[in-house]
Amino acid sequence: MRRAIDLAARGLGATSPNPVVGCVLLDRDGAVVGEGWHQRAGGPHAEAHALSEAGEHARGGTALVTLEPCAHTGRTAPCATALVEAGVRRVVYAVGDPDPLARGGAAVLRAAGVDTEVGLLAEEATAGNTAWLTAVNRGRPHVTWKYAATLDGRSAAADGSSRWITSAESRADVHRLRVEADAVVVGSGTRRADDPHLAVRGVEGAVQPLRVVCDTWARTPPDARVLDDTAPTLLAVSEDADTRQLPETTQVVRLPRAATGLRLAPLLEELYARDVRAVLLEGGPRLAGAFLAAGLVDRVVAYLAPVLLGAGPAALADAGIGTLTQALRLSVTETARLGADLRVTGVPESPAAASRTAGSHTAVRRPVGTRTT
Amino acid sequence: MRRAIDLAARGLGATSPNPVVGCVLLDRDGAVVGEGWHQRAGGPHAEAHALSEAGEHARGGTALVTLEPCAHTGRTAPCATALVEAGVRRVVYAVGDPDPLARGGAAVLRAAGVDTEVGLLAEEATAGNTAWLTAVNRGRPHVTWKYAATLDGRSAAADGSSRWITSAESRADVHRLRVEADAVVVGSGTRRADDPHLAVRGVEGAVQPLRVVCDTWARTPPDARVLDDTAPTLLAVSEDADTRQLPETTQVVRLPRAATGLRLAPLLEELYARDVRAVLLEGGPRLAGAFLAAGLVDRVVAYLAPVLLGAGPAALADAGIGTLTQALRLSVTETARLGADLRVTGVPESPAAASRTAGSHTAVRRPVGTRTT
Repeated sequence: MRRAIDLAARGLGATSPNPVVGCVLLDRDGAVVGEGWHQRAGGPHAEAHALSEAGEHARGGTALVTLEPCAHTGRTAPCATALVEAGVRRVVYAVGDPDPLARGGAAVLRAAGVDTEVGLLAEEATAGNTAWLTAVNRGRPHVTWKYAATLDGRSAAADGSSRWITSAESRADVHRLRVEADAVVVGSGTRRADDPHLAVRGVEGAVQPLRVVCDTWARTPPDARVLDDTAPTLLAVSEDADTRQLPETTQVVRLPRAATGLRLAPLLEELYARDVRAVLLEGGPRLAGAFLAAGLVDRVVAYLAPVLLGAGPAALADAGIGTLTQALRLSVTETARLGADLRVTGVPESPAAASRTAGSHTAVRRPVGTRTT
Repeated sequence: MRRAIDLAARGLGATSPNPVVGCVLLDRDGAVVGEGWHQRAGGPHAEAHALSEAGEHARGGTALVTLEPCAHTGRTAPCATALVEAGVRRVVYAVGDPDPLARGGAAVLRAAGVDTEVGLLAEEATAGNTAWLTAVNRGRPHVTWKYAATLDGRSAAADGSSRWITSAESRADVHRLRVEADAVVVGSGTRRADDPHLAVRGVEGAVQPLRVVCDTWARTPPDARVLDDTAPTLLAVSEDADTRQLPETTQVVRLPRAATGLRLAPLLEELYARDVRAVLLEGGPRLAGAFLAAGLVDRVVAYLAPVLLGAGPAALADAGIGTLTQALRLSVTETARLGADLRVTGVPESPAAASRTAGSHTAVRRPVGTRTT
């Protein structure tokens, strides 16, 4: 199963709106006869790859799969049926499929007399599929907020200079995060200050994420780097924004306004509808504060450079926190050194604690209907 | 020698203005016959302890010492002479003594026909004596700036609440830093905001550090916790401050004023003259900024809690840095987890880079005359 989890991870960033899945097939003597992973949405599932490799050796054997085999006919045939037809006797899967459209594979297998077992290395398999599982369970994309700052929490010096606070290793690592994301989101302040490109560089074969700018008043200039043709781009603007100056080819979505900026839950709904399951929020401080205040951040990745500035913009602005008891506490899942920097990864300690504002900002659970299996 | 270094470390915080020193004596067959460390200023040196334990077994043997044995008669006799008289044949020491008053021990030993060798585990021995070596070399105390902050660089929430941002483990660790320091320094803002006690708690047998408040206008109230009788306290005030309201027993030193607050180099000179070799600077943000701007910080210890606030006072205020190229870069010497927190320790990458202001703020090298050996 550990091998299957490793295989699954190869699909990260390329399978949305589908999960990453890995599969290892053993023959009746327990020898590995087939391996596969889901490589891209619309392509064969992990089980199909493994069955194709195993051929007749699958008969009487065992399938180890990181996720419950699907029972759904989409662009490909259901995997549960394929396993039955190949004569597999036993299927061990790590995690059940929460997707209402695809689940039920285990029942199909059992009905055909195949032994099924669930739960092997469930924690590791879940970790490997965190974004997709979170997205399907919450009906909105999984959101990672990534930021870079000095040890005293500044994202730039007093004069705005910020290239480069972090090390080359950290900046390369951000491209890895982008590869794993389906969309990269920034606010108009960051767009204006940094004119970022936001595409993935330096990762061969990477699927470019959708670039999203929260640009309430549609002020992104036509020559902004984010509007080039390296990757698709979506401008999120307010319902009453004047978009006449934008290039006609620019994709625009109109969203209701919040007290400051745009309402974020509808933004995430819109992205979910566009098959985005994993969002990388790259700032700036105000947009990150709004996401945190709305309880819409699932993971935080902080790149901390061993640098002190004593002045300059803070990495995080108002997140609706007035006193220490309201503070957003993270459970640190990993710390690492990247060049001179520290990378700290954490998840909000409880979704309840992370949700600081009621009502309109809360993500709405909606039916899952866009899985393209 | 590693054993000698471990022994030396037991004296940290209790030996100033002397260094920490450890000594292991081997007899002529290489068996350990004596051990010792310098326990407190005015008490026997490490070599004396070890010689006393070894007795006649030292004759013809080898002494392993973390620092060059002294050649100076102070409150105790010179160690070099004592080693000669005990019949020790060979002395291996890790680091030469830079103190003009005490050095020369190796020459005394060689003149008496004793083999000497220098440099064994020099790096580790130097690390164990960093504060003292820095102090003697620079003619001012070694300064550690310690701060606690959130991952976004805040030292308190928007309403000023700050108890507790960091974990109990981090707070206990700060007491360890205080034990190793000869003086703990805070600014009047921190004094007023937190009414800190600044004494060491929870460490048996600890020597209390001198508590120092930079209080330009002498506004510390008589009932301030820092003025209790747990430990000695020194108020640093401006030359023209009105001190009539202070209790008569309060120790006061008058210092010239800087553009904001007091001039810090004279403060450190004053502390050096009072036998302080290791200073723990505990804040607040403005005083730390002034120390950093003056190039007077030798080590930074950051306790970072996995907490986000998005508002509230920054852990570090103006350090005279306007643009990124002027940033104070640290070389990280250690990272550790303390409870939920991260502790990051670093040293400014170069003293030159750390010194951002010329002239008056630069520490003045002065003769070393207060070692009480």
